[in-house]
This record gives sequence, C-alpha cells and structure tokens, in this order.
Amino acid sequence: MGLGEDVNREGIRKTPLRVAKALSEGTRDFFEECVSKNIDKKGLVIPGYIQSVKEIVEGALFPEEGLDKDEVGHAGGVGGLVIVRDLDFYSYCESCMLPFYFKCHVGYVPSGQRVLGLSKLSRVTNVFAKRLQEPQRLANEVCSALHEGIQPTGVAIVLECKHVHFPDTESNSFDSNHKGVVGILVSSGSGAFEDKDADMWGDFFGLIKFRGIDKDNIHDKGSVDQCWCPSLSNNVSLKNEEIKPTMVTAVASILKSLGEDPTRKELEGTPGRYTKWLMNFQCSSIDMRQNGSLWSGIYDALDPNEEEGFNVKLHSELNLPLLSQCEHHLLPFHGVAHIGYFISKGFHPIGKSFVQSIVHFYGFKLQVQERLTKQIAETISSLVGKNVIVVVEASHTCMISRGIEKFGSNTATIAALGCFSTDLAARAAFLESIPGPKSL
Amino acid sequence: MGLGEDVNREGIRKTPLRVAKALSEGTRDFFEECVSKNIDKKGLVIPGYIQSVKEIVEGALFPEEGLDKDEVGHAGGVGGLVIVRDLDFYSYCESCMLPFYFKCHVGYVPSGQRVLGLSKLSRVTNVFAKRLQEPQRLANEVCSALHEGIQPTGVAIVLECKHVHFPDTESNSFDSNHKGVVGILVSSGSGAFEDKDADMWGDFFGLIKFRGIDKDNIHDKGSVDQCWCPSLSNNVSLKNEEIKPTMVTAVASILKSLGEDPTRKELEGTPGRYTKWLMNFQCSSIDMRQNGSLWSGIYDALDPNEEEGFNVKLHSELNLPLLSQCEHHLLPFHGVAHIGYFISKGFHPIGKSFVQSIVHFYGFKLQVQERLTKQIAETISSLVGKNVIVVVEASHTCMISRGIEKFGSNTATIAALGCFSTDLAARAAFLESIPGPKSL
Repeated sequence: MGLGEDVNREGIRKTPLRVAKALSEGTRDFFEECVSKNIDKKGLVIPGYIQSVKEIVEGALFPEEGLDKDEVGHAGGVGGLVIVRDLDFYSYCESCMLPFYFKCHVGYVPSGQRVLGLSKLSRVTNVFAKRLQEPQRLANEVCSALHEGIQPTGVAIVLECKHVHFPDTESNSFDSNHKGVVGILVSSGSGAFEDKDADMWGDFFGLIKFRGIDKDNIHDKGSVDQCWCPSLSNNVSLKNEEIKPTMVTAVASILKSLGEDPTRKELEGTPGRYTKWLMNFQCSSIDMRQNGSLWSGIYDALDPNEEEGFNVKLHSELNLPLLSQCEHHLLPFHGVAHIGYFISKGFHPIGKSFVQSIVHFYGFKLQVQERLTKQIAETISSLVGKNVIVVVEASHTCMISRGIEKFGSNTATIAALGCFSTDLAARAAFLESIPGPKSL
Repeated sequence: MGLGEDVNREGIRKTPLRVAKALSEGTRDFFEECVSKNIDKKGLVIPGYIQSVKEIVEGALFPEEGLDKDEVGHAGGVGGLVIVRDLDFYSYCESCMLPFYFKCHVGYVPSGQRVLGLSKLSRVTNVFAKRLQEPQRLANEVCSALHEGIQPTGVAIVLECKHVHFPDTESNSFDSNHKGVVGILVSSGSGAFEDKDADMWGDFFGLIKFRGIDKDNIHDKGSVDQCWCPSLSNNVSLKNEEIKPTMVTAVASILKSLGEDPTRKELEGTPGRYTKWLMNFQCSSIDMRQNGSLWSGIYDALDPNEEEGFNVKLHSELNLPLLSQCEHHLLPFHGVAHIGYFISKGFHPIGKSFVQSIVHFYGFKLQVQERLTKQIAETISSLVGKNVIVVVEASHTCMISRGIEKFGSNTATIAALGCFSTDLAARAAFLESIPGPKSL
C-alpha cells in the first residue's frame, strides 16, 4: 500500500474494500437519486441535480393560508420566516478527500400560500453534501436548489464546517489550540436574503444567536480557498519525492469511479494531497523497544535492577491532543490522551513534551484506538516502572460517515498496568481527575 | 379518520401513506436484516434475531494483542475497557406506538485477543431499537446480543430514554416541569458487569460521569412498567366511550402488518392507547372567532371602535410549553411558544394562563408549525389589537424517526402582525428577549 504495511495483516486485509464502500456510501444518495430518476450517468451535470431536487420538493409543498386581507403582517404561508436549526451532516472535502462535518441552519420565507415539509430542507441539503465539496459552494448550491424548488421570498443558509487538522509533519505535532479541527462559517442567501445586509438576516440571526454564531465571523465569499482545507496550507510540507506516483494514480482512479472528473480545476491536486495525508501514517520502521534510538537519552538514566516500590505521588498528563488514522476505514480519528503514573524506584519523572511525542509517535500510523492506548501505556511503563494508566478519548470520522452518522458519539479506551489494574481507588482517583466534557 | 378531520384536505390527504411509510421505515433494519439473510418471516423469533446480530459482529472481530506475559494489567485485546458514548437512536414505545429518543452508552471488556469494530456497537443497538420496545428490555436485548456475539469479559449498557409527555386532557394542559418529555435511565450488564455493584461499573461510570448521569438514578429492573410510558399513568383519562372501536381495530391491524403479534401481553392495550393519544388532537368544532364561546369573557371587555394607537410597553410571555401533532406524519412535536405584543388603546393586558390556554387550544389538533404560529398570533391580535409577534420553537419527532435521524435539530417559526411586521427594532428587541438554548 505504499505505507510500509503488510497488506495481509488481518486488521487491514479488507481495508481497501471498506474504503471503497465508505466512499461510495458517502456519495450514495447522489447516485441513488440519479438511478431512481432514470437519469443517464453521463448526463450528470448541474441541470440533472436541480431536476431531482425539484422532485423532492414538489411532492412536499403544502397549501397554507397567509393572513386575511384586512390583517397587516407576515405569517403562515405568506412571509413568516421558518428556520430549521442544528442539522448535522458530513461531506467530503474536494481538496483532500477527507470527510468533514457540518452543522446546517437553513431557513426560508414562504410565499404563494405554500409551505415546505420540514424534513425536505434536510433532504435537499443532504443531496449536495454527499459529494466532494467546498463549504461556500455547498452553501450556494443548497440555497439555489431550495430557491428554485420552493419559489419562496428568500432562502438563507448558514453552515458551520469542521475539518480534521493536518499534522505538521516537520515537527511531528499539530496545533493543539485547534483541538484537532479547523472550523469555518459560511452563509448563502437568495431573494430577500441575497444582500447580506438585508433586514431579513436580522430575524435569521436573532433565531440562531444562541448557537454561538457571530455574524462577523462569517467568511466572505472568495477568500475561502486559501484558508479552509489544511492540506492547502503551506505548513503541510511533505517532500514531493516521498509521494509514490502509483498511489496518486490509484486515488485519481477512485475519483473517476465516483463519477467525478479528476481534471476539474478544484480536483487537480486532490489525489496528491490525499496521498500526502496517507503518508503521514506511514508505518515507521523504528522499533523503539529493540534499539531505543528515539528514547535512548532516557533509557540511560534507568536502572531496572533497583529494588521495587514506588513513590505514592500520582503524576499525570491530561488532554494531550492526538490524531491517528483508523486502519479499518483509512479515516482519521482525533481526540486526547490522559496519562497517569507512579514513578518506581530508580526511575525519574518524564516531561510533558516527551509524553506528547510518544502519543504522536503511536498516533501517526494506521491504528485502532485499543492498540494505540496499549502501546502508549507500555512505552510509558518502560520509562517510569510498571504502574501506568492511559485513557484515550476520541471522535472517529468513521462513526459519522459511512452511513453510521452518529455525530455526537465518542470512544473511550483504558489501559491499566501494574497497580492500576488491581487498585480500584487509584484508578478511580485518576478517572476523577480527567477534566469535563470537551467537544473533541 | 374519527378525529373530525376532512380526509380530503390537501395537507392530510397523503397522511395515511406517510404514517405507514414512517412505521415501516422505523422497523426497517429489522426486516432488511431478515430479507438479506433469507430468513423466513414466520421464523422471526428470538433465535432469528440473535443469528443476524452474530453475523454483524463476526465479520468485525479483529485480532488484537493483549499484554505480554511479563506485564501485569489490562490493555488492548485482553481486558482494556472500551466505551462508545453518546450514540443517538430512536425506537417505538410498545405501550403507545409513539417514537421515543434514547442516548446509548455501550462498553465491553475485550477478551481472547479480539476487539470489535467500533461501529458495530452502534449497528447492533440499532437492530433492537427498530421495533416496538420498552427501555429495560431494549437494554437487556442489546447486552445479551453483544455478549453472545463478542464473547467478551463483560458488556455494559446505559440508556437515557426520553418519551413525549402526554397531555392531561382534563385540564387541557400538561406538566410544564417536564418540558414536554419524560426521562428514564436504565442499565444492563453481563459477565463482569452482571452484578450492578461490580467494580467494573466504577470504570464505566468514571468515563461517562460528565454526561450528567447519576448511578443512583438508574431504574431498578421490574419497576419500570408503572412509570415509563405516560399512556400507562392514571392521569391520562380519556373516557372509554370516546374511543372509536374502528380506530382501535385499524391500529391493531397496523401492528400485525409490522410483524408484531397484537395479542402479546405487552401489546394488549397498545391500539387503544395509541387511539387515545390521537383523540387528544380531535378537530375541535369551536370556531372561536364566530361564536367566541371560549373567550367571551374577554371579548366583552373590548371596544374595537376606540381610536388607534398603542402603549409602547412590550408585553411578553416566554417559554410557554406546547405539544402538538404533525398532520403530515401523525407524529408529535413539542417545544415552547414566545409571545410579544403591544396593547392597543381600548384593549387590556391578558393573563399568562389565558395565553397558555390559547397555545394549548391550537396545539391539540393535527397541525403544521407554521399554521399553529399564525393562529396563535391572530387570536392574541384579536384580544390586544393588531401588534403581535409569536415565535414557536419545537422539536419534531418526524425529524428523528422516518430515516431522517436529525437528532439535535429544531424548528423556529415567526408570525409578525401589525407594527412587528415593519418595525425592525421592535422585532429585534423581542427576539433578543428570548432566553438562551434549552433542550426542547
């Protein structure tokens, strides 16, 4: 696979199959839409999309009276703003092919004494999400399609998008301020919402103000390309010679089989960027326990012949960011590691940055969270003696994409070595010290 | 339809079709599972269920090393606890057939050097959710199925279930302390978790403690039947003579076509209870604007001939609970109404309880949220003069069930009459006064 992995290892034997399945499920609705409408696959240009959206919408426009003639105002089927907030979706980034998460707030002002079934705002958004996208275009496409389908006074869309952060491979770390994700806020409006200073936006923002959305933070159109996908940033600087052309070609052929044109301007560098991303998780040939080259400075200070026993002070490093790649689906997972340990006699405390580098070392591989947790615990154990506990909390992209769509879910794993495996009080004290809920 | 509605009205013409579709989608995975495994439909007894779960699990058990022999502890494929938290699902209540929402926290302790693909914990839970259920049985069934499938050291399940509250039809209101929903917390454990005081539960609760879950609030097995479904409570006292036997028979036949046995002990009263629920939304024949019987005491005080003008003080009633039934899907929606108004000359302030009864009057019908908002606004307008604004915020059950599964989403609608339709500052001031996020 070009990552130095044994393709026959059981955990990854079926991975290519799972990846193909995930990508095609991720864009499934789009194709199902086409198949069910008997649209020829080659005819899949924008008019084709609009066509199927129109059909979703038309069956769900219900007559609904507006106000009587002698009343002044906006309500019901004429002029009363309708907003559906906090719709969770995922899409795929057209720059790097990784899934990204977004929260959608969508509204429209009815006209013509008709209202749309609420679930259709979600279904139409989903049609445009399930393809390779970029946030501003996604917002614009959903907005135009709804406007065309409903023929309302106006449509307004605000999307909060989150993209997994890319590691800075030079320093073997990534920006911990971002908690592993890059966010962007985009909007799109039609009709009464076309002008972004239009009065109607006041009502819209008035009704989503509690979502922590600041109108001023909304990205201006046109400036998105430089900032959104971390693969486009200059910090991502894997040397070109490390990228295997066969991998790039393979990724381009995946794009083609998804019905995309790999020569489309926005997709030109995509296979290369996705390959770069994968190369971050290249199987490292350093076997630390054998030659200990990375940690040799520390090993020198250890004397394993010293008599047993340990200091009762619980040392801990909490909330160390981690990023890894699920080996079952080739999709990222990210979160934090919490490490607690007692120092055995003859061993010495270890620094936070050193613990963090151990977390990154085991993260930047094809992994499963259970193994990652165990490997971190074993390595720390070899440095401080045998009493170590490690908790890893992570959000798995494979749990939101692939049709599972469990957006809020998050996985915790424990490895408890030495006294932590038997001493309930020590384990409970450590678990108690882990800080409260964070959005991972 | 026995509710006094015109079955040819456009909004509800296709409702029977939509209801049938929703119910069969709600139990879809179950049937698809059977069809895909070529299991005869008549053979759908418990061993059949277990069979298909086993097949989900078996393909996703991956070899994963435990600790080396010279290490003491629990980690990786032997003994390291794995928890997936905050999985969102819905199921259908077997007592009243309404969908209920639940958040699932599921964990297991691996053994035999094998770990399960994380998404399978979600998929197995879903198999048991997509049928008529009761929380404790649901937890037990998921627990047993996972234990049988993974053969781990133990499986632990905690479910936070929420059920739409039933209106107290006598007083035409419902308990506002419940914010429209009844909650219950249940757990189930196998193996190392079988004893609910087992040490392993300490780790489990240690890792979900931030979810606001208190171990002591978990329902003891056996006492659930009396408390969970509000349809079983004594307060729900629609007189028996009001229930049409033809409706009960129709609901029983729906149960049968879902593959359920309507004579199963737990389902005996279900068709009657679902019919009772529907009767809450009977089309009322009182046309308030014509004879004004309900509000006549107030109308007496009004003098519409008084000259125009209004007091500049903004009156408002915020967070008035509401419960209604979506006429497109015959599924409940619940939330709050916020009402703001200026009192025109010759009109008088109206009391909060009176405003609340107007909200309930229009809620307890087959509705769409846009119309409900408009009707509340028009009625208040007739009582205080023409300057009224109404915002309704609601969660729609039809947005979580029916395959849409947008769990956090929520809909806001506005009706603005009189000066509120033109005076941006007045509208903004009212929107600003609406209190922060609530879980509806």
